Amino acid sequence: MEEIEQTSSKQLRSLGQNGIVQPLLTDLYQITMAYAYWKSGKTKDHAVFDLFFRKNPFQGEFTIFGGLEECLKFLEKFHYSASDIEYLKETLPPSIESDFYNFLNTVSAEDVRLYAIPEGSIAFPRVPLMRIEGPLIIVQLLETTLLTLVNYASLMSTNAARYRMAAGNMKLFEFGLRRAQGPDGGLSASKYSYIGGFDGTSNVLAGKLFNIPVKGTHAHAYITSFNGFSELRNTCLEPKGGGPQRDLLQLALGHRSNLVPTFSVVESEASDGELAAFISFAIAFPDGFMTLVDTYDVKRFNLIPMPNTKRGQNNCSGSGLLNFCAVALALNDLGYRAIGIRLDSGDLAYLSNVARQFFYEISEKYNLPWFANLTIMASNDINEETILSLNEQGHKINCFGIGTHLVTCQRQPSLGGVYKLVELNSQPRIKLSQDVGKVTMPGRKDAYRLYGDSGHALVDLIQRSVEPPPELNQKVLCRHPFEESKRAYVIPTRVEKLLTLYWENGKIVQELPNLQQIKERVKQSLKTLRPDIKRTLNPTPYKVAVSDKLYTFLHELWLKSAPIGELS
Amino acid sequence: MEEIEQTSSKQLRSLGQNGIVQPLLTDLYQITMAYAYWKSGKTKDHAVFDLFFRKNPFQGEFTIFGGLEECLKFLEKFHYSASDIEYLKETLPPSIESDFYNFLNTVSAEDVRLYAIPEGSIAFPRVPLMRIEGPLIIVQLLETTLLTLVNYASLMSTNAARYRMAAGNMKLFEFGLRRAQGPDGGLSASKYSYIGGFDGTSNVLAGKLFNIPVKGTHAHAYITSFNGFSELRNTCLEPKGGGPQRDLLQLALGHRSNLVPTFSVVESEASDGELAAFISFAIAFPDGFMTLVDTYDVKRFNLIPMPNTKRGQNNCSGSGLLNFCAVALALNDLGYRAIGIRLDSGDLAYLSNVARQFFYEISEKYNLPWFANLTIMASNDINEETILSLNEQGHKINCFGIGTHLVTCQRQPSLGGVYKLVELNSQPRIKLSQDVGKVTMPGRKDAYRLYGDSGHALVDLIQRSVEPPPELNQKVLCRHPFEESKRAYVIPTRVEKLLTLYWENGKIVQELPNLQQIKERVKQSLKTLRPDIKRTLNPTPYKVAVSDKLYTFLHELWLKSAPIGELS
Repeated sequence: MEEIEQTSSKQLRSLGQNGIVQPLLTDLYQITMAYAYWKSGKTKDHAVFDLFFRKNPFQGEFTIFGGLEECLKFLEKFHYSASDIEYLKETLPPSIESDFYNFLNTVSAEDVRLYAIPEGSIAFPRVPLMRIEGPLIIVQLLETTLLTLVNYASLMSTNAARYRMAAGNMKLFEFGLRRAQGPDGGLSASKYSYIGGFDGTSNVLAGKLFNIPVKGTHAHAYITSFNGFSELRNTCLEPKGGGPQRDLLQLALGHRSNLVPTFSVVESEASDGELAAFISFAIAFPDGFMTLVDTYDVKRFNLIPMPNTKRGQNNCSGSGLLNFCAVALALNDLGYRAIGIRLDSGDLAYLSNVARQFFYEISEKYNLPWFANLTIMASNDINEETILSLNEQGHKINCFGIGTHLVTCQRQPSLGGVYKLVELNSQPRIKLSQDVGKVTMPGRKDAYRLYGDSGHALVDLIQRSVEPPPELNQKVLCRHPFEESKRAYVIPTRVEKLLTLYWENGKIVQELPNLQQIKERVKQSLKTLRPDIKRTLNPTPYKVAVSDKLYTFLHELWLKSAPIGELS
Repeated sequence: MEEIEQTSSKQLRSLGQNGIVQPLLTDLYQITMAYAYWKSGKTKDHAVFDLFFRKNPFQGEFTIFGGLEECLKFLEKFHYSASDIEYLKETLPPSIESDFYNFLNTVSAEDVRLYAIPEGSIAFPRVPLMRIEGPLIIVQLLETTLLTLVNYASLMSTNAARYRMAAGNMKLFEFGLRRAQGPDGGLSASKYSYIGGFDGTSNVLAGKLFNIPVKGTHAHAYITSFNGFSELRNTCLEPKGGGPQRDLLQLALGHRSNLVPTFSVVESEASDGELAAFISFAIAFPDGFMTLVDTYDVKRFNLIPMPNTKRGQNNCSGSGLLNFCAVALALNDLGYRAIGIRLDSGDLAYLSNVARQFFYEISEKYNLPWFANLTIMASNDINEETILSLNEQGHKINCFGIGTHLVTCQRQPSLGGVYKLVELNSQPRIKLSQDVGKVTMPGRKDAYRLYGDSGHALVDLIQRSVEPPPELNQKVLCRHPFEESKRAYVIPTRVEKLLTLYWENGKIVQELPNLQQIKERVKQSLKTLRPDIKRTLNPTPYKVAVSDKLYTFLHELWLKSAPIGELS
């Protein structure tokens, strides 16, 4: 399908952002809080918020950070329109002072600073994905939209990266638009699955907006729309490179008769409607011939012996494969090479083995080496586990089309990213909780990734921003944030500062990578993780530590903030 | 929160549609198929497609149909822009004839007819939600976008309706924007959860676009942003109805001291930062005072005996409740009535009982009957099961804020709606499958809902469109579509034709209901379902039958289409 999946490289497209990403795309309480802050005279208060998550998704031990570019684009256009303010006036209580609306009219992200880890990096619980600093009211007003933009983007990128690891070198295409959470859910799924490691999407608008390869052939409806040869208004095709047209149908029928012994079928079993559909599709896409072969499922009615397979007595879709091979050979007569088949039902491991076996036999019989390597795509309800299970069973699929499970992230449909106040007017803030895991890390912090000799990342270390960075080849004390006895020295051979300034003075201050570069970062970033951390089954947790100073700072503030009760 | 949740009724807002809903929001194969059809001379072919689903979501036995209005708006603007065609030219193989692009340039939904069941109706497996008729190529090109618009909308409406049934008369608010599948996933969630039975959303843009009540107070960050009284730049408030300002903080401190015996706490245990935050919020929203009471979770450090509760020895957030009640009483001194509290962590059933008990006691002690009825909102990771379980335990919550589980539809994150060719050029088409449940119902069909004496729906009956409708008070033979022996006579006292023409000659031909009317239809529609069909645990399946004529038609075509194999 090389012809069909190619996308324009001629024209650089601006990466658009959905128009609904705007300041009112937020929770009302951000605006009620803004008023209460304003009313309390807190317009000059300066806040630091961390955006982070507490748990990796999908029972895994890593996350891919996505959504940064969208966040920065949102900051660029962060201001309330006249109609927004009109709406808020109608919606908020009439007691709200009108000067507040004048204030809202002036807000922008001009005085905000946003630090982030690079988009496409691996990320871990508690380590800030972003640190956002600026006027309390403004930074608070950004919360919901930033979370909306980061949570699903990161979840989707992570999911896609996991499918990519399961699928090895197989091609992966995202086919989930119709099952996504509405139009933009579908677009985001296409974009972030590409970043996470997919090769393309079926979603044409995603292709247009994000310059992602798009892929697609036909649906079952195309096959069922043909009943027989009489419906073909044209059966002729010009050979590749030119010359007089030849009758593709007659060529295919000739091949089909010759193939009957190979397939051990009775020719009358093969559907003529299906063959007619294949012929018409081949004439439309002679260089892109790829077809569904399971439209007329003959399993229940047809007992077709399969060559050289153990379960060969009663299980295959003879019609589709036979018709496909006949048309592929006819195309070959005219100098075209077919692409392959798509399996959308049944026992995919088994059917792919059967199909590949036929392709081998025909390859030998007709001396066409490429025929043995035809693409076998599978697309029925695939998820990460299916791919792993197919790998175990042994299969001959070399391409997957994945929809529902990919885009809905069925195993965990949301990433619990949060946005927490950690400093106000240079004073640290802490949010306590019964659940120790929910206690926030107070104060303005930086994070470093420490690497060992092997090139693998050893630990992410969170420090107070006032501390000097860890030094190369020096012992660094890394502490568990909550368990006093868990400490270790690490001697890093490389230290990576994770948070970089991306937004200041109302402008993006870094050159942003394009999608292909972000995708490459995901790939390289994952290479720095030890295999046991990446594996699906019982992965080893990656360590996230705090510096000794941050440990002490955190626990002193904790004790100070928690009231002491009395037994009574 | 009556003040804050009200929305504009002054101004009718046009129900906008996300700009990304456009013809390229589709799978590429729709366009490659269009070319193959065009190339095969099938531009005049006339097709009938059914849009339906095969299984109700959430292990339930009903579905709410949503998304119709969005589909009709999509038809209104269905045409390819110059830049769309430019993109397709770059993306599709160069072998594609340029006349095809001229053809694409002319397509519109002018010649399409769309029949649908009314939006907000209950719907069942196999019964078409929509029947779409028109030129094969055009109707095929609509597939993905229509499915995208219907699948999530229906899933979300159904999920919301289930929460509504579980929650009885409690207020329900959708708080899921930050956990949705991106910006539009969040907007759709707000809209369709409102239709399904929610009372409002936190999503301000949804409020603005769809005229849905919006709701919100403050986050934990608001509380943690205050350390003590010294940060309050103003503590005075004018009484309701006018008069000299009074010091709300002093009033609240007075009440707090008086409340200490009721709460059996030591006053020093109550956080002054929290009280300062409450005071500032009350001054900003004296008529809308509602606060989180669990920011400083004192459980681990404070062992506070609770009044009249069995588990009263060691479990409550004394600080938040005490501070809330003190401020609520201070507001009362100035003529304002507080709204209530929000619980965002801990044992919600237990804490709500404790809080209500305090409210009762204060209500009696201060002779303030309304105090006993303060709102108790809960918002921590609520799902349908949590609500049912809380109901069983006994609780005093009267309002839920629901996010993640609602908007991601965690129990089943996608509805498997499909779009199948059933007739072409007046000839029926069938898609066979190993899985009987996936065999399509051939031909142009209509569907009727038959009601019994009780007013409950008895069965949905699918017929060939050429058949006369079932008659009132006459025996109607209803057959299981695939099991020959399953038949029953039904004598309907009311017959409802389910599919209505909504789109013809390029126009919407029905007056469309507004959101409130669709919401009302959901409510009324659910009343026609027997309780055992609606229940959560082991619901009775609702019956979907075919007419005797359709049964015969289906099975004859099936036999004719399935090739006969040979044993060998």
